Amino acid sequence: MGLAMTRNLLKAGYEVVVWNRNPAKCEPLAAEGAKVASSPKEVAEKATYTFAMLSDPEAALAVAEGAQGVVAGLAPGKGYVDVSTVDAATSQAVAAAVRAKGATFLEAPVSGSKGPAEQGKLIFLTAGDQALFDAVGPALDVMGKAKFFLGEEGAGANMKLVVNMVMGSMMTSFAEGLALADKVGLRQSDLIDVIGLGAIAAPMFALKGPAMAKRAYAPAFPLKHQQKDMRLALALGDQVAQPLPMAAAANSLYIDARAHGLGDADFSAVMEAVAAQQQGEAKH
Amino acid sequence: MGLAMTRNLLKAGYEVVVWNRNPAKCEPLAAEGAKVASSPKEVAEKATYTFAMLSDPEAALAVAEGAQGVVAGLAPGKGYVDVSTVDAATSQAVAAAVRAKGATFLEAPVSGSKGPAEQGKLIFLTAGDQALFDAVGPALDVMGKAKFFLGEEGAGANMKLVVNMVMGSMMTSFAEGLALADKVGLRQSDLIDVIGLGAIAAPMFALKGPAMAKRAYAPAFPLKHQQKDMRLALALGDQVAQPLPMAAAANSLYIDARAHGLGDADFSAVMEAVAAQQQGEAKH
Amino acid sequence: MGLAMTRNLLKAGYEVVVWNRNPAKCEPLAAEGAKVASSPKEVAEKATYTFAMLSDPEAALAVAEGAQGVVAGLAPGKGYVDVSTVDAATSQAVAAAVRAKGATFLEAPVSGSKGPAEQGKLIFLTAGDQALFDAVGPALDVMGKAKFFLGEEGAGANMKLVVNMVMGSMMTSFAEGLALADKVGLRQSDLIDVIGLGAIAAPMFALKGPAMAKRAYAPAFPLKHQQKDMRLALALGDQVAQPLPMAAAANSLYIDARAHGLGDADFSAVMEAVAAQQQGEAKH
Amino acid sequence: MGLAMTRNLLKAGYEVVVWNRNPAKCEPLAAEGAKVASSPKEVAEKATYTFAMLSDPEAALAVAEGAQGVVAGLAPGKGYVDVSTVDAATSQAVAAAVRAKGATFLEAPVSGSKGPAEQGKLIFLTAGDQALFDAVGPALDVMGKAKFFLGEEGAGANMKLVVNMVMGSMMTSFAEGLALADKVGLRQSDLIDVIGLGAIAAPMFALKGPAMAKRAYAPAFPLKHQQKDMRLALALGDQVAQPLPMAAAANSLYIDARAHGLGDADFSAVMEAVAAQQQGEAKH
Repeated sequence: MGLAMTRNLLKAGYEVVVWNRNPAKCEPLAAEGAKVASSPKEVAEKATYTFAMLSDPEAALAVAEGAQGVVAGLAPGKGYVDVSTVDAATSQAVAAAVRAKGATFLEAPVSGSKGPAEQGKLIFLTAGDQALFDAVGPALDVMGKAKFFLGEEGAGANMKLVVNMVMGSMMTSFAEGLALADKVGLRQSDLIDVIGLGAIAAPMFALKGPAMAKRAYAPAFPLKHQQKDMRLALALGDQVAQPLPMAAAANSLYIDARAHGLGDADFSAVMEAVAAQQQGEAKH
Repeated sequence: MGLAMTRNLLKAGYEVVVWNRNPAKCEPLAAEGAKVASSPKEVAEKATYTFAMLSDPEAALAVAEGAQGVVAGLAPGKGYVDVSTVDAATSQAVAAAVRAKGATFLEAPVSGSKGPAEQGKLIFLTAGDQALFDAVGPALDVMGKAKFFLGEEGAGANMKLVVNMVMGSMMTSFAEGLALADKVGLRQSDLIDVIGLGAIAAPMFALKGPAMAKRAYAPAFPLKHQQKDMRLALALGDQVAQPLPMAAAANSLYIDARAHGLGDADFSAVMEAVAAQQQGEAKH
Repeated sequence: MGLAMTRNLLKAGYEVVVWNRNPAKCEPLAAEGAKVASSPKEVAEKATYTFAMLSDPEAALAVAEGAQGVVAGLAPGKGYVDVSTVDAATSQAVAAAVRAKGATFLEAPVSGSKGPAEQGKLIFLTAGDQALFDAVGPALDVMGKAKFFLGEEGAGANMKLVVNMVMGSMMTSFAEGLALADKVGLRQSDLIDVIGLGAIAAPMFALKGPAMAKRAYAPAFPLKHQQKDMRLALALGDQVAQPLPMAAAANSLYIDARAHGLGDADFSAVMEAVAAQQQGEAKH
Repeated sequence: MGLAMTRNLLKAGYEVVVWNRNPAKCEPLAAEGAKVASSPKEVAEKATYTFAMLSDPEAALAVAEGAQGVVAGLAPGKGYVDVSTVDAATSQAVAAAVRAKGATFLEAPVSGSKGPAEQGKLIFLTAGDQALFDAVGPALDVMGKAKFFLGEEGAGANMKLVVNMVMGSMMTSFAEGLALADKVGLRQSDLIDVIGLGAIAAPMFALKGPAMAKRAYAPAFPLKHQQKDMRLALALGDQVAQPLPMAAAANSLYIDARAHGLGDADFSAVMEAVAAQQQGEAKH
């Protein structure tokens, strides 16, 4: 994703300095005009605003810290934007280190994957220093179709959790609709079509529904990750005393699906926890 | 709605015979070219296909039965299409009476209200005699944007129940998202915007979300009707031995909202059952 | 049960007139001193207080109504006590017919089965005319260990539903405890023993727990009847706007068990809906 | 509790060496024949088997570790029994330190509070080294009425969680029964009495029910602690892929009660989350 995002910046005329753990990955960008640095620190020294796109919290910390890390190259007037998806605690730790150097910090996890990254259609859920959000706004607009400034560090991660919680509950309710339709003799394809024409039409239903009707769950977003997000959202609700009975019921079904060996299937496989019954006595 | 639907048939060049309990309601249609009958029976005698649009099962039965009812005017080769929303038992009773006269029957409840009726954008969820569905297909296309033939009488009513069940669960999950966002310090308007840009964007969220954030619930679809549909969908699931834990959890919240006097508010007022807590100890 | 109850009355010195659809069933009681009548009407004519113990609402109505029914033999000063378990509507219909003859009515469903009936340890949940409750109190004390006067007709049936609802939820929660214990490597027999020593010890856990640990469910109270009571209790809650999320979650699990062909097993077989998972990926 | 437990050992003829952070607390025991040590280490040096009863995991660690801690005084042939309630991780850490000295370890959290401690009626839920369980069995029998050996360290804590989870769900289901009884016009005191006579009678219902009917919740076991146990039990279920929909629904209600400021009330105050509705439209 970092490759696609950088290309969009270069195309828009930005001067870009790049670094990657694997130098070979920088070559195509160098051919398109990017300068290549030998360390994260050097990127931060040469650039006004440094962007990081990393796979997980451990990588995000590794690139930020240490003698050759981004923080070592920061100074007053510079800013650090981490577009990785990390937990609130990691964001807060990096933010503190960045500010100790007099620089500013923005957590900016993205919604959207490779395709939207290439098309400049990402969504940025940012939080941290609003001045930095304003300063890098034009660059975010080059890489994405929408950007939000949500508050203090951690707010971006929380927004992703809330959205994924609603998504997880919706998927489970949709599975209940498909299962009930089938049991009463309706075609699931008709249900998908009817839903697609009305007030509750959602891209996810159109995308996943037909495969769910075939009980096929090629993994896009693994069920175990969806269940982890349900767990974390429920924990967030517990912290702030917000009861979440729908999310709790959905979570039970995702755990049930995990218990049936579906953790690595697509999260739509919660269908199996909703629908999988043997042929026994049915009608009362 | 019957007025708007008839106008679309007239505009498309169909010859139409109309009847209404209140004759004054037929006058504008007469001015536009419709013939006016003095009873439902007379409509059925003069027309090949008779359409009924009535407010409830009692009215549907009253217009079908009796010496001056539609059934009395039916004969082999004729067809009766009831576009009212009635329960499966009423549909089955009318279907039996129609077939006893050698005619055909189609239950055809619509999804969509006044606006879509005027624009010819209704959705027809039909069931009954497929030959009649095929015969009146062109007329349904004049009045609607989509039509489904779902099976035996009762299937149309069941499809509406399944869709409304999914809708009711989705609304409740969305309310949980809004409530959790607020408790963790996120702006609800940001959540609505983020959801609107992604895989779970649905017209209902965009339409109802901003008012829900203001805790305003001007009635469009009354909560007590949504809760009745949850109850009926759960009863349907019970009959066919399909567990529906999400719908059951949502139903509890709709009942809770009803207990707080919100039965006549919009069904989005389930937000109050999800979010309404006093200010007490919150964090653990 | 009627046999055992009558024997206790005879032993206590009451004069008893008996009738049964099958006259052979009256013979042992005749040998012990009971008079035998040729119809329900004759019982009501000869006795001051008539007790009925019947298997279902249809039988209860059949014995009360008609030319040879109990009501035909009633008169002012007489009373009719129905110890069958019937629904509120049936009770109310019989009560109206009884009172139209100037007699009094008591619905008196019992808690307890054959054993308690023989030992005179039934529990009477009565409702209707309190004067009749007072008048037959000594006779109820002969047949039972406790009696309650709960209010108007229907209150006895409602009390049974509320108790059975709590029982159904408790059983499901107990099954969750057994399943969780097993998954974390605890012996289920230890859990049953620990529970039996503390604040939540209940006869049901001691009675059913050891068989549940063996996944054996010899029918005592069939699961489909327990699920019917959950359904009726939820409907009662819906009527009076009382949300019942625990009962609703339990009901989903009983329906799940029914879908797996366990409707005729003991209601403790809800264990299978709670615990039955394949061996797949388990830990997160 | 340590005082009462030690007294029972002295009365039974055991030689006991005691230590307390506050030496004054040892005086009554010295008067009854106990020797007083100046540190946990000295207790472990003088005694064959050392028992600890501490308030929380931090205190348990503090007494075990350090130059003057219990572990420093252990040696092959000695045993350490911790009757505090601590989490599995703390137990495992202490067990490792104890075994590194060649001694044996038993986690032995108790069920029961001050009264049972004085009467020698505690219940010991032990785990760790079975040889130590066997060796101290007679001493446990002096202090308690029952003892269980459950497996590896952590099993005692897990057993307490499972029992408390079932207790928390039962309490919530009981509250639903009380609320429904009230809404349909039954006396809650009658429900409590009927339940007390049958298969689901439990000491907790008899003890808490009458106060719940008065909506009074004098704290015995605080609601926030019950909710914490629900949370931990749900987390345990998540770890081992055991869905727990009943516990999840109950947990939502405890969180709801916490949000209404009832965290410090007795856990029976979950009644308020179940029953607290305004007087609005009720019947459908």
